[in-house]
Amino acid sequence: MKEDEKLSPWKHKIHEIIYEADTPMGKLFDIILFIIIIFSVILIMLESVKAIDAEYHEVLFVLEWIVTIFFTVEYIARIISIKKPSHYIFSFYGIIDFLSTIPLYISYIFAGSQVLLAVRAFRLLRVFRILKLARFLGEASQLKRALKASRAKITVFLFAVLIASVMMGTLMYLVEGDEAGFTSIPTSIYWTIVTLTTVGYGDIAPITPQGQAIATIIMLLGYGIIAVPTGMVTAEFSKQSKDSSSLKTSGSYVHINTQCCPTCSKEGHRDDAKHCYNCGSILNE
Amino acid sequence: MKEDEKLSPWKHKIHEIIYEADTPMGKLFDIILFIIIIFSVILIMLESVKAIDAEYHEVLFVLEWIVTIFFTVEYIARIISIKKPSHYIFSFYGIIDFLSTIPLYISYIFAGSQVLLAVRAFRLLRVFRILKLARFLGEASQLKRALKASRAKITVFLFAVLIASVMMGTLMYLVEGDEAGFTSIPTSIYWTIVTLTTVGYGDIAPITPQGQAIATIIMLLGYGIIAVPTGMVTAEFSKQSKDSSSLKTSGSYVHINTQCCPTCSKEGHRDDAKHCYNCGSILNE
Amino acid sequence: MKEDEKLSPWKHKIHEIIYEADTPMGKLFDIILFIIIIFSVILIMLESVKAIDAEYHEVLFVLEWIVTIFFTVEYIARIISIKKPSHYIFSFYGIIDFLSTIPLYISYIFAGSQVLLAVRAFRLLRVFRILKLARFLGEASQLKRALKASRAKITVFLFAVLIASVMMGTLMYLVEGDEAGFTSIPTSIYWTIVTLTTVGYGDIAPITPQGQAIATIIMLLGYGIIAVPTGMVTAEFSKQSKDSSSLKTSGSYVHINTQCCPTCSKEGHRDDAKHCYNCGSILNE
Amino acid sequence: MKEDEKLSPWKHKIHEIIYEADTPMGKLFDIILFIIIIFSVILIMLESVKAIDAEYHEVLFVLEWIVTIFFTVEYIARIISIKKPSHYIFSFYGIIDFLSTIPLYISYIFAGSQVLLAVRAFRLLRVFRILKLARFLGEASQLKRALKASRAKITVFLFAVLIASVMMGTLMYLVEGDEAGFTSIPTSIYWTIVTLTTVGYGDIAPITPQGQAIATIIMLLGYGIIAVPTGMVTAEFSKQSKDSSSLKTSGSYVHINTQCCPTCSKEGHRDDAKHCYNCGSILNE
Repeated sequence: MKEDEKLSPWKHKIHEIIYEADTPMGKLFDIILFIIIIFSVILIMLESVKAIDAEYHEVLFVLEWIVTIFFTVEYIARIISIKKPSHYIFSFYGIIDFLSTIPLYISYIFAGSQVLLAVRAFRLLRVFRILKLARFLGEASQLKRALKASRAKITVFLFAVLIASVMMGTLMYLVEGDEAGFTSIPTSIYWTIVTLTTVGYGDIAPITPQGQAIATIIMLLGYGIIAVPTGMVTAEFSKQSKDSSSLKTSGSYVHINTQCCPTCSKEGHRDDAKHCYNCGSILNE
Repeated sequence: MKEDEKLSPWKHKIHEIIYEADTPMGKLFDIILFIIIIFSVILIMLESVKAIDAEYHEVLFVLEWIVTIFFTVEYIARIISIKKPSHYIFSFYGIIDFLSTIPLYISYIFAGSQVLLAVRAFRLLRVFRILKLARFLGEASQLKRALKASRAKITVFLFAVLIASVMMGTLMYLVEGDEAGFTSIPTSIYWTIVTLTTVGYGDIAPITPQGQAIATIIMLLGYGIIAVPTGMVTAEFSKQSKDSSSLKTSGSYVHINTQCCPTCSKEGHRDDAKHCYNCGSILNE
Repeated sequence: MKEDEKLSPWKHKIHEIIYEADTPMGKLFDIILFIIIIFSVILIMLESVKAIDAEYHEVLFVLEWIVTIFFTVEYIARIISIKKPSHYIFSFYGIIDFLSTIPLYISYIFAGSQVLLAVRAFRLLRVFRILKLARFLGEASQLKRALKASRAKITVFLFAVLIASVMMGTLMYLVEGDEAGFTSIPTSIYWTIVTLTTVGYGDIAPITPQGQAIATIIMLLGYGIIAVPTGMVTAEFSKQSKDSSSLKTSGSYVHINTQCCPTCSKEGHRDDAKHCYNCGSILNE
Repeated sequence: MKEDEKLSPWKHKIHEIIYEADTPMGKLFDIILFIIIIFSVILIMLESVKAIDAEYHEVLFVLEWIVTIFFTVEYIARIISIKKPSHYIFSFYGIIDFLSTIPLYISYIFAGSQVLLAVRAFRLLRVFRILKLARFLGEASQLKRALKASRAKITVFLFAVLIASVMMGTLMYLVEGDEAGFTSIPTSIYWTIVTLTTVGYGDIAPITPQGQAIATIIMLLGYGIIAVPTGMVTAEFSKQSKDSSSLKTSGSYVHINTQCCPTCSKEGHRDDAKHCYNCGSILNE
């Protein structure tokens, strides 16, 4: 029960705004933040288009600095409004937030460090925090559970697919020559997966009759194999929808709010929770 | 109960023919209209083929005018045979009907306005009115309900796919150079979706080993991800077919006719309905 | 009960061998016939390969005549061993058998008539007669029933896909120019279906950003749409496997033999049947 | 009960290590072996990349000899530690192990025999032995049972797909000329399967309107056909997950260990088994 001392009122206020989404201010902050994240991602996209960058380089540069400063302020606010900053700093989101903010600063030291800006695309994952506001949470968790329940099956399946790819790829390398594009076994395996998943770019394609015959087998195999993950996930979904209809007090419908523990940053507390279910420290009312 | 005054007899007759499909005349009109719509769409297709347009330009032009005049007459008839014309004019179908009729007239004022003719493709949606005649209605509504019930799941899923595409696309832009076709992040994201959905045009394809390795992961991901929407829709269908077999008085089998309220244009009235379920005005017997 | 007079003994014998597959001779005949059909199809394939045809033209020509003579004998035997030859001659199989036999004869009159030989591929459908021998019949009929039950849904679905293709194809024609390959609306619709079904040849591919954006939407649509037929067929299969387990006397497990009525050629008689279920004439014991 | 004489203690020890995975030593051996197999496969891959082979030929050659010697020792150990060596030598794994070991030796006699090294990819199948250690066994066997139960349906389905491919391929050969790539019927059938499975390389693509129309039908067919295997496997999975929940003592959860009969090499003995379920000889405790 150590560390139960409350944060100072204004830090508490900031915590509530930044980390939670139950108050109107918190909701507003989350939505504004997400819009700025989308805006920053679009900025990076535009910069990558040569024609646009050539013409609007100045404007993009200024906008980039504005976004960076906003992210800097947000990052500092996140650190000071939490009891254990290290919990945030070394969390998945903490590292992404840091890598999204820093590139412009260090670009004066290391040329080319702007490449790191691409990390910002990961900040888009915050959309799931906003979605959490709605009933999407239940759906997402059902999705997650379905995938989790099929995990072992999926592993066996992926192993089988990979081994089949290695074997078929090696075979195709022996059968087809260099002129068809099968220049090495790794390339050949890449082609096998391109075919097995029915993507079929066509940059590499068999030209000998034997090669085309094997390719046909791989395609039919891939066509049949796709049934397996579909079947697994579907069976899981069907089971869950049955379970949830027979047992109405399913976990996915417990009322959860978006509060976030000020000590350990865990989320997913029940609406009536008084203590964090992870570290036991008192939650702000 | 205002506006309950009946339309004049001949307007009533036109209304019955144009908007409904229960009388032999109404059925005949719907089928003739649909044939003319298909004919008008084929006309536009043929005009777009240079070789055909060069040879038969005169014939196509005359046929185009005939179709336009028919559509004009139909459009006017629709307006005068309804109590509240604004309901039709600003409805989805009303706007499409208008845009399908007008291009030829304004092509004398604005050159190139014939491009609007393409809107006619949307008139093909009227086929669903004809299908409504048969038992297809129940099936279509089952389809719609299955999609509606899975809506929240589909949204979460689409967000996940889009964010994954942005992240993977950005990564591929950094890994692959310009010569492989990954000239900008938007192009790269486009390629990622082409790969994730297993379309795989091959106009852009990774050439470096690292790029091919990431592409392999994207493909396997796409291969697995396709299981999710399938699983969701299937589970929904299975549930519905179970529900409908245990509960035979399912909504989709209530007898509905193709009558259309002369006041508000709502459709889907019960066969024995006397009042419009939407605005309450009396339906023509 | 007219036409109940039996066939002469040796015609009866031929009928039993050719049309049925319950006697050892009948089974043998069916298997030999199928092998010759496969052989004849392979012959046509080899003839179409220029390199092989150039070298072995003589051999292939002789083999072709041998197959044709065998098919001629079989065709005549089929006609004389049935009470009502017209039933066979104008049946689906009768026409295919005729078209598979005639080309070589008329090739002396009309040059190029050998193209008709390709019809022989349809004779491969006879494999389903051989499969009928085994328990595959039940499975195939389950497949057929599942498809039949989903027929209305599949029709609605196909209409929706086709209309969406016409609309999207027209849109792409307007957005993309000639240089990307969208030379006419029909070509554009073809491309849309190539994309929607995730085939993606890449011979035509959008090059403008707007075109790529619309293509992305079409792909995601296609990715989602594939869930619908899968969901429908799966739900149907699940229902059937449930029905068949609760109701063991399912129709698909009634003992059926391969006897074929000597009068009207209908198949699918019960093993203990004495009269044809279609025309009522007496079946050979 | 002949051949029940125990192996000599040290041979018994080797048998336990090599063939079983219940003792710490056995587990360790299996994992080390699998790592070396993966390593040997990577070696072959690297050798196939021209640039790498040119630079590191010496190193790769030495590593190849080390792997070959390890495999030789393992192969000999497997033979001497089993009571009936012929059971191992002529088993699937025995032949693969032999073919994986021999190429380097005979490369001094027959040039080019190193091609056989590719057989090593098959040794990767041993991963399923390691997976057997965990609960993956149950999942894999469920997968296998689902496929087995759908076997008859899959056969009918594959026949239908192949016959449709032959017919459609022949048709396309007649409709499209040589310039589109449809140079012979076999090539045309290859293209049909490429299209039907939605792989779509694009190396061959129809260019005439008629060809594109037929291609459209093939694509929609393929799009619909994919629903069939998915539906079958899914229905099977759903049934199994239902069966296993109503009947908790399902066979897939019987405790099985990785012991392997020293006489006949059969695996999958119950944990408490005293006699081999296949040949009846006594199992090492």
